[in-house]
Amino acid sequence: MRLARIQHGGSAVWGIVEEGDIYSLEGDLYGEYTEGERICAIADAKLLAPAEPTIIVACGLNYMGEIRHLGAAVPQEPSLFFKPPTTVLDPGVEIPCPAITDMLSHEAELCCVMKRTARDVPEDKALDYVLGYTCGNDIGMMDILKKDNGVITRAKGFDMSSALGPWLETDLDPANLAIKGRINGEVIQDNSTREMLFSAAKIISYISEFMTLRPGDVVFTGTPENGHYVVNIGDVMEVEIEGIGVLRTPVGPKVPHHTA
Amino acid sequence: MRLARIQHGGSAVWGIVEEGDIYSLEGDLYGEYTEGERICAIADAKLLAPAEPTIIVACGLNYMGEIRHLGAAVPQEPSLFFKPPTTVLDPGVEIPCPAITDMLSHEAELCCVMKRTARDVPEDKALDYVLGYTCGNDIGMMDILKKDNGVITRAKGFDMSSALGPWLETDLDPANLAIKGRINGEVIQDNSTREMLFSAAKIISYISEFMTLRPGDVVFTGTPENGHYVVNIGDVMEVEIEGIGVLRTPVGPKVPHHTA
Repeated sequence: MRLARIQHGGSAVWGIVEEGDIYSLEGDLYGEYTEGERICAIADAKLLAPAEPTIIVACGLNYMGEIRHLGAAVPQEPSLFFKPPTTVLDPGVEIPCPAITDMLSHEAELCCVMKRTARDVPEDKALDYVLGYTCGNDIGMMDILKKDNGVITRAKGFDMSSALGPWLETDLDPANLAIKGRINGEVIQDNSTREMLFSAAKIISYISEFMTLRPGDVVFTGTPENGHYVVNIGDVMEVEIEGIGVLRTPVGPKVPHHTA
Repeated sequence: MRLARIQHGGSAVWGIVEEGDIYSLEGDLYGEYTEGERICAIADAKLLAPAEPTIIVACGLNYMGEIRHLGAAVPQEPSLFFKPPTTVLDPGVEIPCPAITDMLSHEAELCCVMKRTARDVPEDKALDYVLGYTCGNDIGMMDILKKDNGVITRAKGFDMSSALGPWLETDLDPANLAIKGRINGEVIQDNSTREMLFSAAKIISYISEFMTLRPGDVVFTGTPENGHYVVNIGDVMEVEIEGIGVLRTPVGPKVPHHTA
């Protein structure tokens, strides 16, 4: 099933996508629900990020090509970092380029959105805790990452740096999906989720060993080779994942400082 | 003014502390409020962590003594990391020792709880955005930090690793407060917030340059020398800050794995 979060009548609502239309989701997104009335055509909907996380956990260095490309040591366990909920960016929405960077970067990633509270979940049960999968762009500031000596907090934690969408696909095997990144139509990442060092199930299980994931929380599963591709103002980034769709994020103008 | 969050009639409510009693807070915690009826004596109250953050931002290496102690380079800018909201631990409550660690550590810290949405706030205005100050214990797993090659996500992001309390003090100059850490009554940290490398105002302003802080969000301002002090099951950790009070956190037994 395909689940979308849309702007409707002044508030955000969840809907069910069928063919070219969106129907209302009646009941509990994280529990039992049924399909209600038709709301609108997809083409007329204002799509929102299909997740309402309290926290986002991201996995770095998870594709062998990317690890070789960066000359990094092969991680023995998932290498994780947090992104706050203020990083969430709706699909199609321009990311304002932070004034402090000249190296905004694109990273296509498969994202898992949690359905159930997960704590100490074994790997073979982990996907039962997932509501669905979506495309993510883990946008970074590569010059700031270098300036901060590899500390990822600013470089990946800035406002609107987690683009998500266009919707969730609930019935999908996350272990074998084509994943592509494009800048202005040019393919700069072309890989498969089967090249992941740690599977989505393994990453979720590993996270749940030290912390609780809650319904709506998001797990980024890493980017294939050619991540950190630097983009310019006016560029259009795209993430396409087989069975899900295309997440499009234009790069907006620089945002000024100290406007408070 | 002293503001406490307490368990009352089956839900969490905010109250105003006066002498030995707690009075109801009528109105908007983050806006205008007045003092209502007496709820109970402090001695009878179940105190909760005095913050409801969407994110916690912590500053590492912020006291010169601690930087020298660790032999670390002096940071040129605040060194930040995120702790998810699932790390919040109520005052007086035992922290379950995660099964994966044998080196649970104590770190006394002054914490700021935000009152207003802060984005691009200049340093000289930053404290206007703070609701109040409280004691924090940034509990860590030092063996895991080493195992993870200094990546702080697991070591400081595990459930209940951010003890906060016992209440907020709203009228306080955070730049000159005595701060103490004790284990089983023995003083292991004894310093002043004037020894901070970056002031609370500077840290908040710096964070707000790349991300939005929201009402209720928490900023940990770093721990003085003798942080990372390793504790054992049964130990009682205490953080005492001048003008605020004492935050007490006993170390509980090891929690088992894979109970899901």
